[in-house]
Amino acid sequence: MYYTIKVTTPKRIAFVDITKKVEEIVNKSEIDSGICCLYVPHTTCGITINENYDPSVINDINNTLNRLVPSNNFYTHTEGNADAHIKTSLINSFAVIFFENKKLILGTWQGIFLCEFDGPRERKIYLKLIAA
Amino acid sequence: MYYTIKVTTPKRIAFVDITKKVEEIVNKSEIDSGICCLYVPHTTCGITINENYDPSVINDINNTLNRLVPSNNFYTHTEGNADAHIKTSLINSFAVIFFENKKLILGTWQGIFLCEFDGPRERKIYLKLIAA
Amino acid sequence: MYYTIKVTTPKRIAFVDITKKVEEIVNKSEIDSGICCLYVPHTTCGITINENYDPSVINDINNTLNRLVPSNNFYTHTEGNADAHIKTSLINSFAVIFFENKKLILGTWQGIFLCEFDGPRERKIYLKLIAA
Repeated sequence: MYYTIKVTTPKRIAFVDITKKVEEIVNKSEIDSGICCLYVPHTTCGITINENYDPSVINDINNTLNRLVPSNNFYTHTEGNADAHIKTSLINSFAVIFFENKKLILGTWQGIFLCEFDGPRERKIYLKLIAA
Repeated sequence: MYYTIKVTTPKRIAFVDITKKVEEIVNKSEIDSGICCLYVPHTTCGITINENYDPSVINDINNTLNRLVPSNNFYTHTEGNADAHIKTSLINSFAVIFFENKKLILGTWQGIFLCEFDGPRERKIYLKLIAA
Repeated sequence: MYYTIKVTTPKRIAFVDITKKVEEIVNKSEIDSGICCLYVPHTTCGITINENYDPSVINDINNTLNRLVPSNNFYTHTEGNADAHIKTSLINSFAVIFFENKKLILGTWQGIFLCEFDGPRERKIYLKLIAA
């Protein structure tokens, strides 16, 4: 069994904070402690963990990805979203975080972000909990 | 216990689709559902999940990695494969994917790739399944 | 339950080999075989697996990250460590490795590194073991 988190992304490139949605599932689960595995079943969006207090951090991550992987037309993939595929492999499609007593064990400043690189779209994140 | 997938990579830089090899192990396992952990025990090749339908996607990922991390001679590591080590840390050495009823839960366009950055070589990917 | 590894990082940017600290915990655990999940609860340092034999490899990874994500002042985050946040998302905040018979299953040249991007600081790595 796995859970599905649904996210509507607002524009082509956007990081959406899904921490509360993950936390809700962990809070209600019958498993007290363990690992929470997150998986993104898309090839043009990823997942990352970073600061969710000051939004300028996410802004800088995005600007840097845009600088390193511009959305130009020199790619061989002709659907216009090659940059989104490349960023996905740089950022990652999955994450593993810990929970104890039905609460996520994140650092003070950490949040979990779905990284949309080719939106706006309806996106899904799969979630499995394993006792440990 | 862990499984070992063996891959012969064809040239210095090549992404090899290992999805079917992973799927075969998952199909035959006694575990119905859970997470499939993949681990690459090499320091000059990695693993990523991305589109395996149009090969131009992988081509663009590779070209971008080559642009960002060229195989020049300005590195301090003198074995001529510093670029391969660097790309490995950018791409990652492990992956965690889900399976249900002995089938991988991948997105429509997703495949699993061994990313060879210093081939051609004989490479191994370790695999463990955990019920969940 | 989870373990905590503590690391004092020596300067602003430094990769610290934590392989032995991870190995010690795995050696003493009651679980014989499984996966070892590592999690970094910070947003300006990450974790990676790469060669720990010739230190020039880590030197080249660091130089390349500094070239791709310079510590300039053109970022919107005004705390002077935007580069550290960006590198953390490129490198990753967690790792999953295997162990068998209370020993880590690493490749010959592989070590596990805490990647400090905004030190010197006291850092923590959380660790959970799951039988498999």
